[in-house]
Amino acid sequence: IRSMASKTQVGFVGLGNMGSPMAKNLLKHGYPVIATDVFPESCKELQELGAQILDSPAEVADKADRIITMLPSSPNVIEVYTGPNGILKKVKKGSLLIDSSTIDPAVSKEMALAAEKMGAVFMDAPVSGGVGAASSGKLTFMVGGVEEEFTAAKELLSCMGANVVYCGQVGTGQAAKICNNMLLAIGMIGTAETMNLGIRLGLDPKLLTKILNMSSGRCWSSDTYNPVPGVMEGVPSANNYQGGFGTTLMAKDLGLAQNTATNTKTPILLGSLAHQIFRMMCARGYAGKDFSSVFQFLREEEGQ
Amino acid sequence: IRSMASKTQVGFVGLGNMGSPMAKNLLKHGYPVIATDVFPESCKELQELGAQILDSPAEVADKADRIITMLPSSPNVIEVYTGPNGILKKVKKGSLLIDSSTIDPAVSKEMALAAEKMGAVFMDAPVSGGVGAASSGKLTFMVGGVEEEFTAAKELLSCMGANVVYCGQVGTGQAAKICNNMLLAIGMIGTAETMNLGIRLGLDPKLLTKILNMSSGRCWSSDTYNPVPGVMEGVPSANNYQGGFGTTLMAKDLGLAQNTATNTKTPILLGSLAHQIFRMMCARGYAGKDFSSVFQFLREEEGQ
Amino acid sequence: IRSMASKTQVGFVGLGNMGSPMAKNLLKHGYPVIATDVFPESCKELQELGAQILDSPAEVADKADRIITMLPSSPNVIEVYTGPNGILKKVKKGSLLIDSSTIDPAVSKEMALAAEKMGAVFMDAPVSGGVGAASSGKLTFMVGGVEEEFTAAKELLSCMGANVVYCGQVGTGQAAKICNNMLLAIGMIGTAETMNLGIRLGLDPKLLTKILNMSSGRCWSSDTYNPVPGVMEGVPSANNYQGGFGTTLMAKDLGLAQNTATNTKTPILLGSLAHQIFRMMCARGYAGKDFSSVFQFLREEEGQ
Amino acid sequence: IRSMASKTQVGFVGLGNMGSPMAKNLLKHGYPVIATDVFPESCKELQELGAQILDSPAEVADKADRIITMLPSSPNVIEVYTGPNGILKKVKKGSLLIDSSTIDPAVSKEMALAAEKMGAVFMDAPVSGGVGAASSGKLTFMVGGVEEEFTAAKELLSCMGANVVYCGQVGTGQAAKICNNMLLAIGMIGTAETMNLGIRLGLDPKLLTKILNMSSGRCWSSDTYNPVPGVMEGVPSANNYQGGFGTTLMAKDLGLAQNTATNTKTPILLGSLAHQIFRMMCARGYAGKDFSSVFQFLREEEGQ
Repeated sequence: IRSMASKTQVGFVGLGNMGSPMAKNLLKHGYPVIATDVFPESCKELQELGAQILDSPAEVADKADRIITMLPSSPNVIEVYTGPNGILKKVKKGSLLIDSSTIDPAVSKEMALAAEKMGAVFMDAPVSGGVGAASSGKLTFMVGGVEEEFTAAKELLSCMGANVVYCGQVGTGQAAKICNNMLLAIGMIGTAETMNLGIRLGLDPKLLTKILNMSSGRCWSSDTYNPVPGVMEGVPSANNYQGGFGTTLMAKDLGLAQNTATNTKTPILLGSLAHQIFRMMCARGYAGKDFSSVFQFLREEEGQ
Repeated sequence: IRSMASKTQVGFVGLGNMGSPMAKNLLKHGYPVIATDVFPESCKELQELGAQILDSPAEVADKADRIITMLPSSPNVIEVYTGPNGILKKVKKGSLLIDSSTIDPAVSKEMALAAEKMGAVFMDAPVSGGVGAASSGKLTFMVGGVEEEFTAAKELLSCMGANVVYCGQVGTGQAAKICNNMLLAIGMIGTAETMNLGIRLGLDPKLLTKILNMSSGRCWSSDTYNPVPGVMEGVPSANNYQGGFGTTLMAKDLGLAQNTATNTKTPILLGSLAHQIFRMMCARGYAGKDFSSVFQFLREEEGQ
Repeated sequence: IRSMASKTQVGFVGLGNMGSPMAKNLLKHGYPVIATDVFPESCKELQELGAQILDSPAEVADKADRIITMLPSSPNVIEVYTGPNGILKKVKKGSLLIDSSTIDPAVSKEMALAAEKMGAVFMDAPVSGGVGAASSGKLTFMVGGVEEEFTAAKELLSCMGANVVYCGQVGTGQAAKICNNMLLAIGMIGTAETMNLGIRLGLDPKLLTKILNMSSGRCWSSDTYNPVPGVMEGVPSANNYQGGFGTTLMAKDLGLAQNTATNTKTPILLGSLAHQIFRMMCARGYAGKDFSSVFQFLREEEGQ
Repeated sequence: IRSMASKTQVGFVGLGNMGSPMAKNLLKHGYPVIATDVFPESCKELQELGAQILDSPAEVADKADRIITMLPSSPNVIEVYTGPNGILKKVKKGSLLIDSSTIDPAVSKEMALAAEKMGAVFMDAPVSGGVGAASSGKLTFMVGGVEEEFTAAKELLSCMGANVVYCGQVGTGQAAKICNNMLLAIGMIGTAETMNLGIRLGLDPKLLTKILNMSSGRCWSSDTYNPVPGVMEGVPSANNYQGGFGTTLMAKDLGLAQNTATNTKTPILLGSLAHQIFRMMCARGYAGKDFSSVFQFLREEEGQ
């Protein structure tokens, strides 16, 4: 029987930029954390805060019956769950496995099937919000999996996030994340093109922003995260596109959108072109900048 | 000297679906209206409401020193202003000419130059909001032209609209309108693609809408004018895409965006593709439907 | 030791529209064929022509040390090679396994690794040319795999094709096929758009074709497979787009191109849009027509 | 009556990179040339070769009843024909006016109408082939206008070109040119994307080129003007993309394609995206390079 009533041990696999602050928030909420990561140095800080560090996901699964994973991409998730030292090698019957990585929903479904064979429950719970939200415990979790287990998952996820939304069967958490980020990407490039065109036509960028935001052109990229330097404060465009959500990460998420659309034979004309634009930006020196730097990418270079 | 202080005669050229209710609102506010239209039958209703009907724009210009024009496209505007029976044939010195048509900003600038030669002032003031907003006097006017004349223009436009925004030099009203509608088009297609993909991935459309609207995918097309039947009430998608803003009109506005972008050598990758998508829809039976029917266009046909 | 010198048994898995005539050509060239297919009825005709029919790929592998596979997509290939009744369950050491399916090159590489573990050699050898070329033995094979085995592969493939081209390591046969078809798709849509635009501008389609073909616009789609009815004889556009290369198949190949581009982080702006266009055509009633029907898709519907 | 029988004077307006060698070829063929250009220095060389230089197009029209114009863009053509010192100010009745500029076909039609009012005949005859072909008299002329005048036009154009093709009514010469260049642009970007993808997938670029050229991916950009350095000799890609057909010029021609497509409501999805890609290249330092440098543009920058 899984330990849900009290604050018993929680396993955590993947202590990167996002996973590390998430695990810290579990500690803050009084959960004993048993963690592991492929890079031993990532574990030190958490160990000093009281977490127990083990050598592999399998060992974590041997000790904890609730485990959260936060990994960079699909192959890492496959390895951590089904690899030779993976969670499923030693998972206890009835364990709850929550994957917060952003990956292909098809892989989430595969992992759920593999977990089910071992008598465990797998849920996908990708996040929106960056490192800041991870640190302050303000992430949004989009959760897919069997509905009866949602309460148990929410108990843990609420320590790390402000919103925990149930989306449906396994994979729908990933689907919701991918859909949101695809629309975000389209809105951001659209805003960048529009602002650039307006400026060329003689409009003041602040005025144009005001007009868009009171009209039907309004979107999150125009009213909350405007890509034009000088229009808003506290956003990456005000800081030479440092920080924020990197172009590489956006290109990765659009790659997932593209793959799921191809697999489901869904036409995504703008989504697909948005993917290609961020991909091209990665190749031309924008990989490390915030994705709103697409405004800069579309403008004429100095000296041209 | 132009008559601004009191409610003296106002000329009105173009009594179509939009122009007619606009002129009625001028009458309601106590302005004597002198109007003309190429279709005599369009004039009858206004005549019964007390407007004086004349035979040509030139005759209107001979009687009124404030004139509003509301026409379908650039060639009509050129004809009404500079044609053989056009306004500029008989315009009085000091007259204020306000064009609310949606046209190429380059044409607005030409008209302003031509008016200036005759001692008159030309301003562009395209609207956002459809026939409903025109009837209820709730249009938004985006106004370009010399700033000193804005007060005089606003006095009249306020009778027909809820918002009157000064955008800058002549042509910037058009620019603002074009920019907004381009971003609107991108946001709408993006929303349609995203909703379609999400549904294919197993998400409930109402739930996906809720998630997008609390996240960074949020835009006017997702939160105010959702294109998926069953998600919202009172929008065209709830009424088989009848009413609203026709695909043909959106394709026309995107054609203007495309032209101004080409002329200013501005890259608009998504804007350009959005134009092509609405153009294709016009060719495939969607011309008369609301532009949010792009959701339907992207879905699989029955029986396929 | 594999039997290469004389015409010993050759295994064949996958007797569909393409595989069946290919296997017949092996019989015609005097090779004893041992075949299998998931649909027993597909096997009858070949059996009557003298082939031995077995129940599973594993049984074929038990008898023949040279096997050709021709399957619809990646999952089928994975099943036929690594499934519970798959080739690798009973493959003989030193066997030569040639896969002529069009699949993801990454899957070809996986199969090659799995075969290598069993002491067998796997090569990918997808074809260009349709059912007609398969029947007449005029296919082109693009072959990837260890170069030392190419001669052995070519001996068999030459019975079924007019050209057998060595492309490099495992997966490069697929890569060549995917690349060719992506450029073909782009050229075809480009030709369709260009012809449509030219006709709208008053050009005679035959004359425009002649001009393009003597100029830098020339491509296979303009000079060999023109998509405009009335320009050429003996092509699908002359026969209401029946026969030829189906839109669904082209959409599938572009899906592979899209996936490999995403995985290798390669920007393919036109390739990606071409994929979306054929995908949209599949959803709008063009799935079963030749892919040159994109010309028809882009033209205005009657009555609009 | 126009002088056609013998080699009487021919007017020439526009002595730029293309016009200058064209006029020289007329001189070589024994035609007395009367020329003008806005830049006096452009006229010197031609004067030394025996041409008579005059101050304005009007003066040229006063002396010659056959005139050829070769100008950068639509506004220049409008000025040279209908401006205050334009050809139509002094054109003789029955004169033959041939415009070899690449411009909007709608402007060609306007010029033809204006010429007709003065009793003159206007034909559009844009060229394909660059400065080299202009020097060696190997241009291709695509001619639009009344068919009865084609023989007279061909007599002159044959001195400057190897091919003179009659395309139909006024404007169809431009249409043919625009159509060819749009398909060329699509084929070039498609080839660049395909070669880049193939290389990433492990294919040798020379081998891939060979495969494409024997298959359905074949096009002028793959078999005659390959964009990948090292594949062909004597093309711009072999010379760091110097010489050839500049990206700026291609972007200009695609702008014309885009405008005519918008005006005729023709969907050009790939053509439109091709336009945006070359536009973006112009903004990012590729303006002066040959348009095949799109291969370089799509590849990853060094150090990324």
